Amino acid sequence: MEELRGTPEMKEHYFDDLKPGDKFQSETLEVPGKAIVEFAEKFDPQKFHLNPKAAERSMFKGLVASGWHTAAITMRLFVRKLNFAEGAIGLGVDELRWPNAVRPGDVLQVETEILEARSCRSKPNYGIIQLRNVTTNQRGEIVQSMTAHAMVPRRADKTT
Amino acid sequence: MEELRGTPEMKEHYFDDLKPGDKFQSETLEVPGKAIVEFAEKFDPQKFHLNPKAAERSMFKGLVASGWHTAAITMRLFVRKLNFAEGAIGLGVDELRWPNAVRPGDVLQVETEILEARSCRSKPNYGIIQLRNVTTNQRGEIVQSMTAHAMVPRRADKTT
Repeated sequence: MEELRGTPEMKEHYFDDLKPGDKFQSETLEVPGKAIVEFAEKFDPQKFHLNPKAAERSMFKGLVASGWHTAAITMRLFVRKLNFAEGAIGLGVDELRWPNAVRPGDVLQVETEILEARSCRSKPNYGIIQLRNVTTNQRGEIVQSMTAHAMVPRRADKTT
Repeated sequence: MEELRGTPEMKEHYFDDLKPGDKFQSETLEVPGKAIVEFAEKFDPQKFHLNPKAAERSMFKGLVASGWHTAAITMRLFVRKLNFAEGAIGLGVDELRWPNAVRPGDVLQVETEILEARSCRSKPNYGIIQLRNVTTNQRGEIVQSMTAHAMVPRRADKTT
């Protein structure tokens, strides 16, 4: 299990709290080699994710995390930071890129920027946000970037 | 752990084996409720992924898998079917969508279509493929679709 550092972020957010340009820094998370291998055994059984010795001989010259593991860790850091009161419902993701690999012991952090916030016509209790998540390692190198649309709840007292 | 059905797909593929229009059907995988909750506890701790009772009161009216769990399962089914000899290196993903939620007991299958296959200028031992993965449940409903670019190895005897 990855080790969480820093204090949990418990402030709840609603759609009403967010506007384009807002930025949020997540807590950090260390990714041990054991977690990289465990994820790969379940979901991405390729040798550069599974076996340190075989990974040495690959293009990566060492064990690296599955991009989907990096994406899942990013979701964890994002969800804990934004902490949407009733949850955020992902509608879709675009431009998901992994410019640098995550390696054992890397410490990841996510910066979220709100790009757009608009009403949801079909569901008046919700709004739709577009956001950009950029995940970096302890050296500030980008290990993942993506944009996403999500449906998030409005405060009940503002829906009238 | 999700239960694998059907026989493992062990045929190795190289870049040279693939051309635009080729389609591949993965084996199927059942997703138990326990796996949905385990993934969510680690990576997407939102109540409609974690707690069946709380999920009943959400927009989903019941427990649903994290979209990132669906994406990870899709990778597993894709990797086992295509079984690239030296592994496939994901370069990026676009248009990742989750039109229907995955629920406990759903049985997923992935259809892969090769959209494009081209040489890799900087790395002559590899080619770059663009593919579309569509993941369906036991009723044929689409639970995820995406396009991706990946770098895959050429056969050594064809690189001269």
